[in-house]
Amino acid sequence: MEQEKEWNFQGNEELNASAVSVRGVFNTLLANLNKQDQRPLLRLCRADPTDFSCFRTTPVAPDAIASAAQSFSFNCYPPTVGLLEARRAVAEHLSSDLPFQLSPDDVYITIGCTQAINIMISVLARPGANILLPRPGYPQYEARAACNGLEVRHFDLLPERGWEIDIDALEDLADENSVAMAIINPSNPCGNVFTYQHLKRVAETARKLGIFVITDEVYAHMTFGSNPFVPMGVFASIVPVITLGSLGKRWLVPGWRLGWIVTCDPNGIFQKTGVVTNIKNYLDITTDTPTIMQAAIPQILKKTEDEFFAHNLDIMRECADIFYVRCKEIPCLICPHKPESTLTVMVQMNFSKIEGIIDDVDFCVKLIKEESVVLLPGVTVGLKNWLRISFTAEPSALEDALSRIKAFSLRHMPKCHTSSV
Amino acid sequence: MEQEKEWNFQGNEELNASAVSVRGVFNTLLANLNKQDQRPLLRLCRADPTDFSCFRTTPVAPDAIASAAQSFSFNCYPPTVGLLEARRAVAEHLSSDLPFQLSPDDVYITIGCTQAINIMISVLARPGANILLPRPGYPQYEARAACNGLEVRHFDLLPERGWEIDIDALEDLADENSVAMAIINPSNPCGNVFTYQHLKRVAETARKLGIFVITDEVYAHMTFGSNPFVPMGVFASIVPVITLGSLGKRWLVPGWRLGWIVTCDPNGIFQKTGVVTNIKNYLDITTDTPTIMQAAIPQILKKTEDEFFAHNLDIMRECADIFYVRCKEIPCLICPHKPESTLTVMVQMNFSKIEGIIDDVDFCVKLIKEESVVLLPGVTVGLKNWLRISFTAEPSALEDALSRIKAFSLRHMPKCHTSSV
Ligand SMILES: Cc1ncc(COP(=O)(O)O)c(C=O)c1O
Ligand SMILES: Cc1ncc(COP(=O)(O)O)c(C=O)c1O
Repeated sequence: MEQEKEWNFQGNEELNASAVSVRGVFNTLLANLNKQDQRPLLRLCRADPTDFSCFRTTPVAPDAIASAAQSFSFNCYPPTVGLLEARRAVAEHLSSDLPFQLSPDDVYITIGCTQAINIMISVLARPGANILLPRPGYPQYEARAACNGLEVRHFDLLPERGWEIDIDALEDLADENSVAMAIINPSNPCGNVFTYQHLKRVAETARKLGIFVITDEVYAHMTFGSNPFVPMGVFASIVPVITLGSLGKRWLVPGWRLGWIVTCDPNGIFQKTGVVTNIKNYLDITTDTPTIMQAAIPQILKKTEDEFFAHNLDIMRECADIFYVRCKEIPCLICPHKPESTLTVMVQMNFSKIEGIIDDVDFCVKLIKEESVVLLPGVTVGLKNWLRISFTAEPSALEDALSRIKAFSLRHMPKCHTSSV
Repeated sequence: MEQEKEWNFQGNEELNASAVSVRGVFNTLLANLNKQDQRPLLRLCRADPTDFSCFRTTPVAPDAIASAAQSFSFNCYPPTVGLLEARRAVAEHLSSDLPFQLSPDDVYITIGCTQAINIMISVLARPGANILLPRPGYPQYEARAACNGLEVRHFDLLPERGWEIDIDALEDLADENSVAMAIINPSNPCGNVFTYQHLKRVAETARKLGIFVITDEVYAHMTFGSNPFVPMGVFASIVPVITLGSLGKRWLVPGWRLGWIVTCDPNGIFQKTGVVTNIKNYLDITTDTPTIMQAAIPQILKKTEDEFFAHNLDIMRECADIFYVRCKEIPCLICPHKPESTLTVMVQMNFSKIEGIIDDVDFCVKLIKEESVVLLPGVTVGLKNWLRISFTAEPSALEDALSRIKAFSLRHMPKCHTSSV
């Protein structure tokens, strides 16, 4: 091929850099698995409880899909904003927790919360603009912002205050180019739930700063601690709120990719400022949510029984308890806040109790090699030398994983400490 | 609110500009509908035959969905590249028309061909790069390229040569920043099918220019003229080819959003140049195809009977015949090439036979107002003063629509011509 023209394509480096996602790191870790280890691989690294068979969706859900498919009524292209019946069902579902009624027009059906995030980042991105994101957080926001050229500024979540937002720092961070802030409540990765009072302060601060609030409520209602879940939309008369959500977590069907963007905005500010137009225009050039999946939403929302949720929460609460007790027995880990919601929790590495491990990534690489347990290095969610643990697993698998982590920790104890344990 | 801070958000103008999509224009036209008109609205403007009840999918398809859902086996997150069984099924399906065997690794499952287009545009976009697109074409490419800052250069399709590509002009258009060219075969909007010889020349030209070929084969096998469908992948040893496709059109389920990106590349050039890495990285930050839909692909591809396709093609051929005969009776329209494939055809406005209509948009606005028939203005697909007609309709509806267009044409005849008709 000597004489032939080279290919003009060059790798898109920006894209490659922005793809440092949870999923990317997960693949890297898996490459370090010791294939000789006969024990099952235990993955406490994904926000997907359905990896474990005790977490199984209600038959209501597949039956709704089957009947939508077999009706032959949902085969043509849907409206780009979503099927009216799906939008109406989501509006009704969310309105029951709000002081005002959402209309179907407030709802845009999306392909999971992931697409909802991607759409909102695209809608907000313009040269010079910035968005305020929590640290630690959910890296999809950062990855997509990098890809779209939207500047990211991080505000801290404070472990010593139960992972509340550092609101003073938030105020210092914002300027006239800050278009929005995002919160994740209940929190991935921290596992905490914001109080009514804290959310109200967030709303008032955002109002003062002139920024919108995006609230990622993909874990809505999946709480079992003392703080009840309060949707941010409750404060939509103070500041306009974009609520993102999906069926994936609560209904245990993350693979189904059914989500939404909802404008909670009784004062019509999203309409006036052009946010609504931008969302609709972006949807016009975006792929639609499969009709069959959309068409199942009304049945799923209407027919799922409370027992299904209660049963799952019972297992999840049990997992949180197991995790919290067992974690205290692991010398090199510190958990600052017991999880009050699914699915993840942050623990800090205690370097005084571990030797020969240089950081969180090294910890995770050696852990999978030696114990066939996968955790997510904190650096991927913004906190170096912390670890994110997805504790919502089959209880016996969780016990097993925590024993292995304990063994790992003891094996890597600094020499001078070994005798004291 | 006088004293309060303004909102920092400003509309994303670039986004709004790039959203001049088929769907956007369609909404504008619908706003002109005369609600007093008692006749049914006839839409010959969408590439969605399922608007008409004679086009109905095979029961194989919904049954495959229902059993995937009711198996409870496809609820967790899929691999970002797609489920292995779906990738394998698509690889086998496409390999039967190729001189080499595709591997499942060549296939990425996408949410319709729309997402496949969006992914490829994102993968190719980098500052300074350009892509060569057909004119007329499918505006999703242009809209997405604008949104991603990828420069577009158009090569013409020549009506007088049965809509073949102007290959000489293509060569003049390309430079060292041209990364790829896209073709749509069978063609939307022109309704033609490229010959083996023409595709071979395209491959050789692309090789000479150092650009990849993206082939949009969303209408693969939906042909009924003298040119058989030849997949561009046949020439993949000359130039590496990215094949885009979906089940939507051929299986009459556009709402289901099941598509693919396939690398046809026996020489491994996409691997070497980093295209494969870029695709995978982009998929890492993109929403996945719903598992339930993916899981149905193997059954759908395996079990659909030839009679289903043959029956649909019979109706579509009948539509093409009706269209071609009736169109000749419409004074103000010229059809340069009888459609040999679904779903659309381009006709030119003959201004010497029409009065009081300034252009194609004006034509479509007045047509919907006066006759409740919707056509797509050619300008939206790149050819001003042409019209795109989706002729694949219920035959009786098609006849009705063409009669109304004829009445419209006669009513708007220049005065001096009226008596001669
Ligand atoms: C905070 C948060 N937001 C969004 C998502 C993505 O949700 P979905 O699966 O509906 O796309 C996740 C998934 O883990 C998440 O943890
Ligand atoms: C040429 C072409 N490519 C892609 C698409 C989009 O296909 P899908 O519905 O699978 O997203 C269409 C739809 O009309 C089309 O005409």
